[in-house]
Amino acid sequence: MKARFNKVAIAGMGLMGGSLGRALLERKLALEVTGVGRNIKKLKLAMKKRAATSVTTDYKAGFSGADIIVLSVPVDMIPEIFRDNYRFMDPSCVVTDMGSVKGAIVGEIEKIEKSFPGRRNVFVGSHPMVGSEKTGIANSSAGMYEGGTCIITPTVNTDKKRVEVIRSVWKALGMKTVEMTPGEHDEKISGVSHLPHMLAFLLSNMEAGVIKNNREIIGNGFRDTTRIGASSEEIWGGIFMENKKALSTDIDRAINGLNKMKALLAGSDINSLKRYIRNARKTRELLNK
Amino acid sequence: MKARFNKVAIAGMGLMGGSLGRALLERKLALEVTGVGRNIKKLKLAMKKRAATSVTTDYKAGFSGADIIVLSVPVDMIPEIFRDNYRFMDPSCVVTDMGSVKGAIVGEIEKIEKSFPGRRNVFVGSHPMVGSEKTGIANSSAGMYEGGTCIITPTVNTDKKRVEVIRSVWKALGMKTVEMTPGEHDEKISGVSHLPHMLAFLLSNMEAGVIKNNREIIGNGFRDTTRIGASSEEIWGGIFMENKKALSTDIDRAINGLNKMKALLAGSDINSLKRYIRNARKTRELLNK
Repeated sequence: MKARFNKVAIAGMGLMGGSLGRALLERKLALEVTGVGRNIKKLKLAMKKRAATSVTTDYKAGFSGADIIVLSVPVDMIPEIFRDNYRFMDPSCVVTDMGSVKGAIVGEIEKIEKSFPGRRNVFVGSHPMVGSEKTGIANSSAGMYEGGTCIITPTVNTDKKRVEVIRSVWKALGMKTVEMTPGEHDEKISGVSHLPHMLAFLLSNMEAGVIKNNREIIGNGFRDTTRIGASSEEIWGGIFMENKKALSTDIDRAINGLNKMKALLAGSDINSLKRYIRNARKTRELLNK
Repeated sequence: MKARFNKVAIAGMGLMGGSLGRALLERKLALEVTGVGRNIKKLKLAMKKRAATSVTTDYKAGFSGADIIVLSVPVDMIPEIFRDNYRFMDPSCVVTDMGSVKGAIVGEIEKIEKSFPGRRNVFVGSHPMVGSEKTGIANSSAGMYEGGTCIITPTVNTDKKRVEVIRSVWKALGMKTVEMTPGEHDEKISGVSHLPHMLAFLLSNMEAGVIKNNREIIGNGFRDTTRIGASSEEIWGGIFMENKKALSTDIDRAINGLNKMKALLAGSDINSLKRYIRNARKTRELLNK
């Protein structure tokens, strides 16, 4: 199989970037993968894990000549890295990211692109819905993307041909792709990812006493519900902040739901409580099918 | 290996009762296991699954002559079944339950025992911290109890010898045992089991639209966080209601936590937000060790 791309540059060789490099090389989708980052020790580990064919702390060298550039850094750093290195990117390259927030990122990057008139927009927003609470190249795997779904978030300003290129990358990694606007993405992902992470952090903090002193009474229910509560503060602090509008709305909806259940308890309204649980069960069972 | 008990009666042959019967027979801890319940079809399935050596819908016949009686029914039915069948139980028998709430159940049952002066108290509260969101004998397994922890909740009124008998039963099934008061149990289990279930039901209901229409964008984080959201309304409606005091306190704590995070978002206080997440991560990581 012939490699589809001569050079793919990945900024940030953590769990997501590292897994991407490994998958691209293992599937022979890129002749060359350049890992770009600030920490040379981590970059060297990425080389050892065969997540890159070369690594550099020099963004200019890393991005120059790349067909595809993937910004795999915490969401609050994505527009900054794009801005600082835009001038090193080939005019014909395609740039994407893997951030869990899209509205703020896509908006910022489009502003930057607009400030360079005469150049075609190079950026296409992506959010591959895979990963784990674990971080770092050490936990990376070439199969991480396979079977998952990637959300692509083009706008009216996005180059359609580049959307097709990015879609082909994710598909070549074994992903399904869906398209939605950045705003629709942020609202939906707030509910099915950001709020669940917040609740997992909340539960872990609330039950710190039992976790520390009575761990033996903690069962699998708590473990599964809070698994993502072991996720990184560097990644999730930024995600929550960048999606604060949709997330705050979901927090309000969660508080309303909790108050409703508290009222059912206070009123000893077991029939309504069972109906509420029954609806939840029937809905959740759809995901097991 | 010689069986330790001649006859164990289990009222309720669902996931928990069925798994118990299978484990007792497989480990030859009981010569005879009698499954007692209302639905003869389900009882016959229990026989087929080797969860019982005999079954009956007649509580009198089922409980008579049993050394051990285990009430494995939804928590709101435990005191009722005890009350209605107390007179059929051998004076020397030991009775326990597997309910996820202890204060209300133990209190009710001690009241019933007190109304029969001259008889030694037969009841010892248990809560084996194992199980699943699935229900029914079809999902039972002989190994379900192995490696788990069982909380035993004696009071000043509990017969110490019977506590030892019950402890030996759970230990023979491969469980660790810990003792605490019914009140302490309910407070701790509210936080590490009841509130997590409530949050899983809440998330499943809140995200019903995405679950029904955009299932492809739902990742493993949401799936794990809401797994127990597929639990039975018949079991959990009763648990929530019977533990309403501790659970309402935990709901208030959760709402306070959510309001705190909303304020951090509104104030763009990313450092405090990262600190909050970092504490949660460090705490949750303790469970992975």
